[in-house]
Amino acid sequence: MVNLRCYHATMATPRTPAQPLSTEAELSIARAEAAHRHAHLFSERSAHIKQSAVRDVFDISMRPGLVSLAGGNPFLQSLPLEKLGTMAYKLITEQGLTALQYGGGQGTDLIREQICRVMEHEGIMDALPENVVVTTGSQSAQDVACKVFTNPGDVVLCEDPTYVGALNTFESYQVRAEPVRMDGNGLVPEELEARIAQLRAEGASIKFLYTIPSFNNPSGITLAPERRQRIVDICRDAEILILEDNPYGLLKFEGTPYVPLRADNPDDVIYFGSFSKILAPGLRIGWALVPEHLQRRFYLASEAVTLCPPTLNQMLISHYLEGHDWVGQIASYRGLYAERCAAMLAALAEDMPEGVEWTTPEGGFFVWVTLPEGVDTYPLLRPAIEAGVVFIPGAAFSPAGAPSNKLRLAFSAVAADKIREGVRRLAPVLREAIAGR
Amino acid sequence: MVNLRCYHATMATPRTPAQPLSTEAELSIARAEAAHRHAHLFSERSAHIKQSAVRDVFDISMRPGLVSLAGGNPFLQSLPLEKLGTMAYKLITEQGLTALQYGGGQGTDLIREQICRVMEHEGIMDALPENVVVTTGSQSAQDVACKVFTNPGDVVLCEDPTYVGALNTFESYQVRAEPVRMDGNGLVPEELEARIAQLRAEGASIKFLYTIPSFNNPSGITLAPERRQRIVDICRDAEILILEDNPYGLLKFEGTPYVPLRADNPDDVIYFGSFSKILAPGLRIGWALVPEHLQRRFYLASEAVTLCPPTLNQMLISHYLEGHDWVGQIASYRGLYAERCAAMLAALAEDMPEGVEWTTPEGGFFVWVTLPEGVDTYPLLRPAIEAGVVFIPGAAFSPAGAPSNKLRLAFSAVAADKIREGVRRLAPVLREAIAGR
Repeated sequence: MVNLRCYHATMATPRTPAQPLSTEAELSIARAEAAHRHAHLFSERSAHIKQSAVRDVFDISMRPGLVSLAGGNPFLQSLPLEKLGTMAYKLITEQGLTALQYGGGQGTDLIREQICRVMEHEGIMDALPENVVVTTGSQSAQDVACKVFTNPGDVVLCEDPTYVGALNTFESYQVRAEPVRMDGNGLVPEELEARIAQLRAEGASIKFLYTIPSFNNPSGITLAPERRQRIVDICRDAEILILEDNPYGLLKFEGTPYVPLRADNPDDVIYFGSFSKILAPGLRIGWALVPEHLQRRFYLASEAVTLCPPTLNQMLISHYLEGHDWVGQIASYRGLYAERCAAMLAALAEDMPEGVEWTTPEGGFFVWVTLPEGVDTYPLLRPAIEAGVVFIPGAAFSPAGAPSNKLRLAFSAVAADKIREGVRRLAPVLREAIAGR
Repeated sequence: MVNLRCYHATMATPRTPAQPLSTEAELSIARAEAAHRHAHLFSERSAHIKQSAVRDVFDISMRPGLVSLAGGNPFLQSLPLEKLGTMAYKLITEQGLTALQYGGGQGTDLIREQICRVMEHEGIMDALPENVVVTTGSQSAQDVACKVFTNPGDVVLCEDPTYVGALNTFESYQVRAEPVRMDGNGLVPEELEARIAQLRAEGASIKFLYTIPSFNNPSGITLAPERRQRIVDICRDAEILILEDNPYGLLKFEGTPYVPLRADNPDDVIYFGSFSKILAPGLRIGWALVPEHLQRRFYLASEAVTLCPPTLNQMLISHYLEGHDWVGQIASYRGLYAERCAAMLAALAEDMPEGVEWTTPEGGFFVWVTLPEGVDTYPLLRPAIEAGVVFIPGAAFSPAGAPSNKLRLAFSAVAADKIREGVRRLAPVLREAIAGR
C-alpha cells in the first residue's frame, strides 16, 4: 500500500535496552516503560495525524545541487526587502508597544479592512471587516472549519486531486474525504450531484465541499466560469457549505482573476485567503471570510487555539499594503510565474517520453503530469532524487492514497533554466519506468 | 447561572425580515434561510467553544480613564525597542529570503537550541532541541495536547482555580475538566490521589493533570517544592501525563526560579514555555518540551494545524537572545513586577474592607482576592467598571463556572500609582457588596 502521507507516521518505538546496564541503558529502559505507561493515553484521532508528503521532502529539497520541483514556495527574491525592513524597524520603534502586545482574537481592525480591499481585487466586492477572521496562515483556517463543522465519521467532499494539507486536516478530525471527479474544466457538476446523492443514500452526513477552484493545488486546473454557479447551487440545494480556498486567485498569468464562488454567494461559501503566496508565507497570516450567520462560532474557535494572530505580522502587512505598490508587486509575480510556467511546459514538450501528458495552468504554481496507466510515481521518487530532481508523487493528493500515475511539478520557486534542467533530469527516470511497466 | 465563559457564546440570531421588502430585507431573509439551512452542520464540539472572560473585557479594558487590573499583559515599555527594530531591519534585509519563507514544522534549529538554554535558566538542564516543538504561543500547545491525547468525554485534572484559556480549550475538545483542591501551597497531593481514585471508580478515563505550579494564573499560588515530586509520582503511578505550564517561571521576584516538575521527570511531563511573558506576546511564539516517546505525534499534530510557526518571529527572537542581555532584561522585569505587586498588596492592605483576603505571590502577574462567603463577584463587574476599574470575576477560572466569591487582579501592566488608584476605586464596590449580602 503506497501512501506517502503515511510515510513517516509510525510512532517512535521505545529503545531496546542495552547490556550491560549503563546509565544510557537505564535511561532507555525508563523510556520504554514510559512509552508503555502512556500508550493508552493517545486520542483516537491522533492515529490519523500524518505528515504531509510536501513536508516529507522538505529537508531533501534543501540539498545543494538538487533541483526541487517539489515545494510550492513563492519566489521572494523580488520582494522589496529594504522597504519591508525599514517598515519593520519603524513599526517596532514607533508602535512596538502595540505590535509586540496581545491583540484582538479576530485580527486588527485595520488589516481586516485592508483584507476586504484585497478581496475586491480577487472579485469579492461586498466583504465586511466584521466577517473576516485573521488566522495563522490559511492552513489553520481549515483546521478551525473542521473543528466547527465536523464530527468524527462525517463526510467532506473534495476535488481529486486536492491539497495535501487539507487532506491531513480532514484525517486529523477523523473525517472521510470523498473525492469528486474533475476534468480539464474542474469539478464536474453532474459528478458532484451524483456523489452527494449516492453518499446520502448510504446515510453519510456531508458537511462541506472543499475546493480550490482557481489553479488547483496540485493539478493547476481551473473550474470553468460557466460551471461555478452550478456548483454552488448544487451545494446550496443539498444544504452543505462550500469551503473555497483561493490562495492563488490573484496569480492568474493574464487578464482579470476568475470570479470566486463566494462573490455572488455570501451566505453559502466560507472563503479562505492568504498572504503566503502574494507576499510572504513566513509571516503565517491568512484569513477566512465567513458568512455572517456562521461568523461567531468560527471566530471563537479560532481565538481558542491561538488567543490572537501575531500582532507584529499583521501590522507589518498593513504597512506593506499601505506603503508599497502591492498590486504592482503581484503583477510582477504574475509575469515571473507565467515565464517559469512557460519554461516548464516547453521543457516537458521537449523532454517527456511518449504517453506522458500534463496540464496547462492559467495561473498558480503547479503543473500536473500524468504517466501512462500502470506506472506508479511513488517508487520513482528515489531514482529521481538520485538523478538530482525532486517532485511530489500523485498519491499524496488523493484521499485514497492509492498508487497513482500522476506527479506534481512546482515551477514557482525555481529559475527557468533550472526548471529546464530539472525536467531534463526527470525525463530518463520516467522513460525507464514507462518502458519497464 | 453565572458563567462568564458563556457570556458571549450565544449564536448570532438570524435577522428578522423587515417590512416592506427592501433589498436589505431580502438580504435578511436570505440570511435567515441560510442560517436555517446550515443549522445542522455544526459539530457537537462547536457548542462548547466559548469566549474567554479575559477576552470579554479586552475591549472594555482599552477605555481611556479606566484602570484595568483585568488583563495579564506584560509591560513592554522597558523592552529595547530601538535594538529590536534594528534587529528586525537587519533580519529582513539580510536574511529576508529565509525569514519570510516557509520553515520547518517543528521550528527552526537555532531557536530550538536557544529554547533549551532558556529552559536551563528555568531549571531544566537536559532538554534536547529535537524534543522541542515551537508553537503559536503556548495556547496552541494546549490545543495540540488535547488533540493528541483526548477523546470526547475524557477527564483532565486541573487546579481550582486555573487558567481560563486552558478551560476553554478543554471544553472545545468536549473534555471534562475536574478540579483538584489547592491550598496556599498549591495542589494538595492527598486530594489529587483521592480525586484520581474517585474518578477511576466512576469509570472515568483520565488523560492528564494540567498544572501551573509556579505563580498560578489566576491565584498567584506556588506549589511548594516539597510537594512537587509527590505530585509527579502520583500521576506516574496512575499512568497519567502531566502538562506543566510555566510561562511565569523566570518571573520570580527574588532568588532562583522554582525547579519545574519536568526537571527530574523527563518521561512523564510535557512542559510548556513561552516568550509571551519574558519578551513579547505579539510574536506568538511558545513551545512544548515533549518526552521523547511522545514527541512525534505531538509534532505532527502541531504541524498539521499551522504548517510551521512564523519564521520571521522565530528568527527575531533568535537575534534578540543572541544580541541582547535577555537575562538582564528579565531581571529588570522581576524588579518591576515585584514593585508593582508590592504596591498592590499595600493598597489592598490599606483599602480592602473587613473579611477580604488575598494571596501574596512570589512571582508572576496576579493576586487572587477572596471575599466573604456568599458574595458573587460576577455582578460586581458592572459597578466596578462604572467606578473606573476592571477585574476578572473568579467564576471564569473554575471548570464549574459556578458563582464565586473570588476575583483576579493583575498588576503586570499598570504603574504602581495606577494600581493604588484602581484598588481605591474597587474598595467601595466590594464594601457595598459585602454589606448588602
